Amino acid sequence: MYTATTIIPYTVSMLPDFFAPDAQLVAEEIGDGNINYVYRIKDKDSGKSIIVKHAENELRIYKARFVGTERNRIEYEVLELQRKLAPDYIPELYLYDEENNNIFMEDMQGYENMRYELCDHKIFPHVAGHLADFCARVYMNTTDMVVGAMEKKELVKRYTNVYPCEITERHVLTEPYQDLDENGVCPENDAFMRKMIYENEELHARVGVLKDRFQTKAQALIHGDLHTGSIFVTPERTCILDPEFAFYGPVGYDTGNVIANLIFAYANAGVTMEDGSEKAIYIDWLLQTIEEFTDEFRKRAIAVLKENSTDLMMQSDLFFDLYLDDISLDAAGYAGTELIRRTVGSSGVRDIAGIKNESAKARAEKICLDAGILFIMESERFRNGKDYTDALKLL
Amino acid sequence: MYTATTIIPYTVSMLPDFFAPDAQLVAEEIGDGNINYVYRIKDKDSGKSIIVKHAENELRIYKARFVGTERNRIEYEVLELQRKLAPDYIPELYLYDEENNNIFMEDMQGYENMRYELCDHKIFPHVAGHLADFCARVYMNTTDMVVGAMEKKELVKRYTNVYPCEITERHVLTEPYQDLDENGVCPENDAFMRKMIYENEELHARVGVLKDRFQTKAQALIHGDLHTGSIFVTPERTCILDPEFAFYGPVGYDTGNVIANLIFAYANAGVTMEDGSEKAIYIDWLLQTIEEFTDEFRKRAIAVLKENSTDLMMQSDLFFDLYLDDISLDAAGYAGTELIRRTVGSSGVRDIAGIKNESAKARAEKICLDAGILFIMESERFRNGKDYTDALKLL
Repeated sequence: MYTATTIIPYTVSMLPDFFAPDAQLVAEEIGDGNINYVYRIKDKDSGKSIIVKHAENELRIYKARFVGTERNRIEYEVLELQRKLAPDYIPELYLYDEENNNIFMEDMQGYENMRYELCDHKIFPHVAGHLADFCARVYMNTTDMVVGAMEKKELVKRYTNVYPCEITERHVLTEPYQDLDENGVCPENDAFMRKMIYENEELHARVGVLKDRFQTKAQALIHGDLHTGSIFVTPERTCILDPEFAFYGPVGYDTGNVIANLIFAYANAGVTMEDGSEKAIYIDWLLQTIEEFTDEFRKRAIAVLKENSTDLMMQSDLFFDLYLDDISLDAAGYAGTELIRRTVGSSGVRDIAGIKNESAKARAEKICLDAGILFIMESERFRNGKDYTDALKLL
Repeated sequence: MYTATTIIPYTVSMLPDFFAPDAQLVAEEIGDGNINYVYRIKDKDSGKSIIVKHAENELRIYKARFVGTERNRIEYEVLELQRKLAPDYIPELYLYDEENNNIFMEDMQGYENMRYELCDHKIFPHVAGHLADFCARVYMNTTDMVVGAMEKKELVKRYTNVYPCEITERHVLTEPYQDLDENGVCPENDAFMRKMIYENEELHARVGVLKDRFQTKAQALIHGDLHTGSIFVTPERTCILDPEFAFYGPVGYDTGNVIANLIFAYANAGVTMEDGSEKAIYIDWLLQTIEEFTDEFRKRAIAVLKENSTDLMMQSDLFFDLYLDDISLDAAGYAGTELIRRTVGSSGVRDIAGIKNESAKARAEKICLDAGILFIMESERFRNGKDYTDALKLL
């Protein structure tokens, strides 16, 4: 760990040519996640800046939890690979200091955290297409059929990400379904949560299947934590950060997470905005974004595979349809687990937890839980974007 | 590679106490596979013997194909682990010589190759139960939910088996569907093969899905080549050898292979035995064996998971049913790919290729191809043993 003072000479020693020799540098720690430390070092006069992302062996928010530093190397290498496959969405990388677990990268000045922007009910007309494009390029281009099964087996080993996966298996796919002190919803949803989440045997079995799939399905090099807090936006551009949970896993885990996080924004807007045309337009844009992301991802994924699949058995339209149907099935399930864990579990999101009016918050929670349960119990129904938005409109 | 002469002093040097100092040793190379060399060294007087299994970097039958020797270490370690989990079915291991890629193990005297025995229409009343027990113990006890997801990730890396998997991906899951010189069936099946195997687009897409699953589904430490030629039997006991293709893959690949290989014997008996009570009894035993293996595996797998699953989300009867349904789905598909590749492809089996009467052979081929196509195209239908035998009776 560094202080604002120690990070400056360290950065200059690592990248002596980055700042002018006489630059007046200032630094601050700007991380708001649960895991790492993020420093911004800035030249006060020119405004030029750099980000240093630092990993310790223990979780930032819970020092007793060992998580190792391997994730830092993985994050750097995954960012490198993602930048090769989808350069529009990934910051420039300057250096990796393996010894001290530090990634030096571009400061995405002018970009805002997408979750915060959605909570402010801002519209980003291009973000659905950008995210679909990113997912299609990065995930499809890391499958067996594109990289080749031999090379891919090496990649699976290289990106085995033990501790972050354990965090997901525990916090996303187990604990939200257990009657634990750290779980909880608004009082008016408590009975519903107990009955429909804690005591819902069929739901548990289906989440068990999703957990098993998370542990066994080495489909593509996924981001592993693709929520709207990992996405940074300007009106024109989109940047995807923080792939420290990356590993070879089910593509639907990521695409489902995107859908779920758009639904948090949808629930937020639904209960916090005043009725009127502004709300109608915003809700409409969110639903359209869910549809566009879902359908564009499918379309672009097939286009990438069509162009790049080298496998003789995996080149027909029918195969691509079966392949994407399978990803859709996973996406629905994992959209469900994300909706539930962020609502019930210990990792709340600003979109819901930040709603001040308690009865509005309770309504938002209920939308998320209803949607989550539905997506898990009836995953087969959710193939196209419209399948999601039709269901949301009925909640 | 060794000669019958060089293997003796080498074996004595590695295991100086195994044979008596004055033993008169003889050796022969007894391997009949495509890949390795197998030596039996025997004390002429006492009859005491040992097996040395040796791997070279190249395939035995095709020296230009590099396959490495990693599979030899994997085979040894997998045999060790299988012997721990299912000791009744695995030979005793004496030593592994990593430098020279040699496994020293028990000579299973008195056991016969199951494929040869089935071709001789011999009955083994216990073999279905033994195979079901072996599969349930070894595969279920190597899943995430039993070994724990962290430990299992290490096992996946340890048992990444690049070249053997590539052989399966190529010879089982690709080439049988391509119009290649080395493929072929009896002349009367040629048109059928071209239309229903080479030019069957839906079949190709579904085999593509099975190939993808083979490459991505790290479910359990499977054998990887569990055909009846890897199984050795006495009237009372069963021994499973040659796990050099072992890796973390779909359990249904192995169980489907067992089913397919029983069907080769069924097709053989159907077309080569004379009608009468002996044939009726034998066919009946084979069908019963298919049913018993399928249903006992399911029952025992659930029993193992019930006892050993440590995952809170994976402990209910409903979860186990979903989990085994998924394995059944895979099993049907891979039973299909095994039936097709052994009939059409370059790795024929004695049960079919060994039928001397050409028209009988053609009928046997047709049974295997019809069954194979059906299992792949309608995998969902094959959950219980009876689903298979009902379908076979209609062919």
